[in-house]
Amino acid sequence: MQGNYKALWLNDDLFDECLEVIDQRLLPFIYDTRHLTTTEELVTAIKNMTVRGAGVIGSVAAFGIYIAAIEVEGDYELLKEKAALIRESRPTAINLMWAVDKMMELLKNSENIIEDAREAAIKLNDEEALESQKIAEFGCDIIEEILKKKNKTKINILTHCNAGWLAVIDEGTALAPIYEAKRRGIDVHVWVDETRPRNQGASLTAWELSKSDIEHTIIADNMGGLLMQRGDVDMVIVGADRVSANGDVANKIGTYLKALAAHDNDVPFYVAIPASTFDFEIIDGAVEIPIEERSGDEVKFIRGVDEDGVLRRVRITPEDSPAKNYGFDVTPARLITALITNKGVCRADFNEIKEKFRG
Amino acid sequence: MQGNYKALWLNDDLFDECLEVIDQRLLPFIYDTRHLTTTEELVTAIKNMTVRGAGVIGSVAAFGIYIAAIEVEGDYELLKEKAALIRESRPTAINLMWAVDKMMELLKNSENIIEDAREAAIKLNDEEALESQKIAEFGCDIIEEILKKKNKTKINILTHCNAGWLAVIDEGTALAPIYEAKRRGIDVHVWVDETRPRNQGASLTAWELSKSDIEHTIIADNMGGLLMQRGDVDMVIVGADRVSANGDVANKIGTYLKALAAHDNDVPFYVAIPASTFDFEIIDGAVEIPIEERSGDEVKFIRGVDEDGVLRRVRITPEDSPAKNYGFDVTPARLITALITNKGVCRADFNEIKEKFRG
Repeated sequence: MQGNYKALWLNDDLFDECLEVIDQRLLPFIYDTRHLTTTEELVTAIKNMTVRGAGVIGSVAAFGIYIAAIEVEGDYELLKEKAALIRESRPTAINLMWAVDKMMELLKNSENIIEDAREAAIKLNDEEALESQKIAEFGCDIIEEILKKKNKTKINILTHCNAGWLAVIDEGTALAPIYEAKRRGIDVHVWVDETRPRNQGASLTAWELSKSDIEHTIIADNMGGLLMQRGDVDMVIVGADRVSANGDVANKIGTYLKALAAHDNDVPFYVAIPASTFDFEIIDGAVEIPIEERSGDEVKFIRGVDEDGVLRRVRITPEDSPAKNYGFDVTPARLITALITNKGVCRADFNEIKEKFRG
Repeated sequence: MQGNYKALWLNDDLFDECLEVIDQRLLPFIYDTRHLTTTEELVTAIKNMTVRGAGVIGSVAAFGIYIAAIEVEGDYELLKEKAALIRESRPTAINLMWAVDKMMELLKNSENIIEDAREAAIKLNDEEALESQKIAEFGCDIIEEILKKKNKTKINILTHCNAGWLAVIDEGTALAPIYEAKRRGIDVHVWVDETRPRNQGASLTAWELSKSDIEHTIIADNMGGLLMQRGDVDMVIVGADRVSANGDVANKIGTYLKALAAHDNDVPFYVAIPASTFDFEIIDGAVEIPIEERSGDEVKFIRGVDEDGVLRRVRITPEDSPAKNYGFDVTPARLITALITNKGVCRADFNEIKEKFRG
């Protein structure tokens, strides 16, 4: 486990206990946290990406039910309304819906909703941390296999967006095997896709890896294809926001392009997920998974620090040119080598997924 | 022709005639020009990308030989040394080498080097403008065919980087058919790839298209795959810096990823080039074309204007994280529908290219 690093935790400094989260919008420039004391604050924090990452959103949502329970003084009917608000705050994240539904199910017959919500949210988090550790181990076994097969001692892993401890409790999904590799003494180097337009790679992943002393190099999203053509990438590991029953993967916009390049260059392409990422309601991911559209301003404006260390938001396009901004794309199962899950490695295949996860 | 818009022109305001160019590093925020009066200034302007774009670099290089000829007072031996400096200023651009070599060949037996260099450079530019016009016409014929085949009235074209009039005299390569489409009254919309890390799309292409009132939308480089999956792209047109004898295309980093996505979604993928872009010395482009590596700071820092309109350079990554920055990738011929050249449309095929262009 990373030990010192967490994306969120309960804070009882205030009158009622509240949720404290790292404000991920300010990273890597400023480390700051926010107190989420109401459902409204919590929904806003999810929407404006103060908190982001499939797992962390789920965790925040679970604690959100606890915060909401305090707010409505344990009234289940009122809590249902709050839960609906939390559930709708981000459309693509299946963990969010899963966490809210699971919490509400657990509390349905509770006689002490506030206390039970607290306990359930903590339990859900502990379980997620354990899942992350299992993904770390299964994923690192694959790293070892690849090194053995290639007769190499150093692994080059490309990742897109951020699926580390800032994204999923406790060590992430895509980055978990990398942290595990470090623990096992493997020489690991990570190609970090910048991940436009919100730059989760260049800011969050690079920052995370720096904190953990893991060798990494930031690249423009455009560069992964060339690196694969050159043989400079041994494997790709990404996370996912939702995986359909047939193994199609919704993940941060641009993932599909990297999967195509990996396929074209025989680079193994892995998706690391907790089992809760599966959405069995959706059979054909490419057609059915809803894709979130976000503001074009995320493309037109960018944050950074100037030479005096002052955080600034600048426009990088002509003022009048419009921009379109979809948050996710869907990578078809045929491009995926395998899914690394907390229950083991599984091919992105309808029958194998069904057998292993719906049993 | 665009008429009013030019990327460079001769200016005789100063004692000796000099070359005036648009400083493309400041666009789309500031329109400003530079006077290039010496070989050194000219080489620096190519290296630091004050001027960029395959054709414009070639044009600047041709006028550079004229500027150098003034500098060395028409001495051919001294001119050869200056020519070598210009020739080496950017490694991937074949037009640059082609223009320098052509100029030097023409001047070999000249008895009036300065005057002849001036005349030759102007002639070379006029020829390029004509080539651009031919590309515009052949390319627009394809646009009309696609619309007819799809029974549509509006075409959605995706382009990467900038291959318009800021890149190639007189209307560009990839954008030339789009300008022609407008003249022919076709309803055209352009998806403009931002083109990290230097953002030539989000800054130069968007600015160019704005100036010409052509409907366009800026997208992160990550988004093209999803748009193609959705059927929102009817064709891709890009330029090229070098095309090998077998039809492999070296173009701005990220082009290869778009070609993969186009291929995967049956979207026609065209490369618009003047015939001078072919490099018959190189048979297998994927293996042999040298790829320019540029400073990682181009990934780590970005320019934009703040809310007060002040141009600022900000860092968008953690300070200590390194970045890698290759400028180009090579798209294999198998992914290319056809090459749109000034001599007509040609498949990206060794024999067809040989027959048409080496004949």
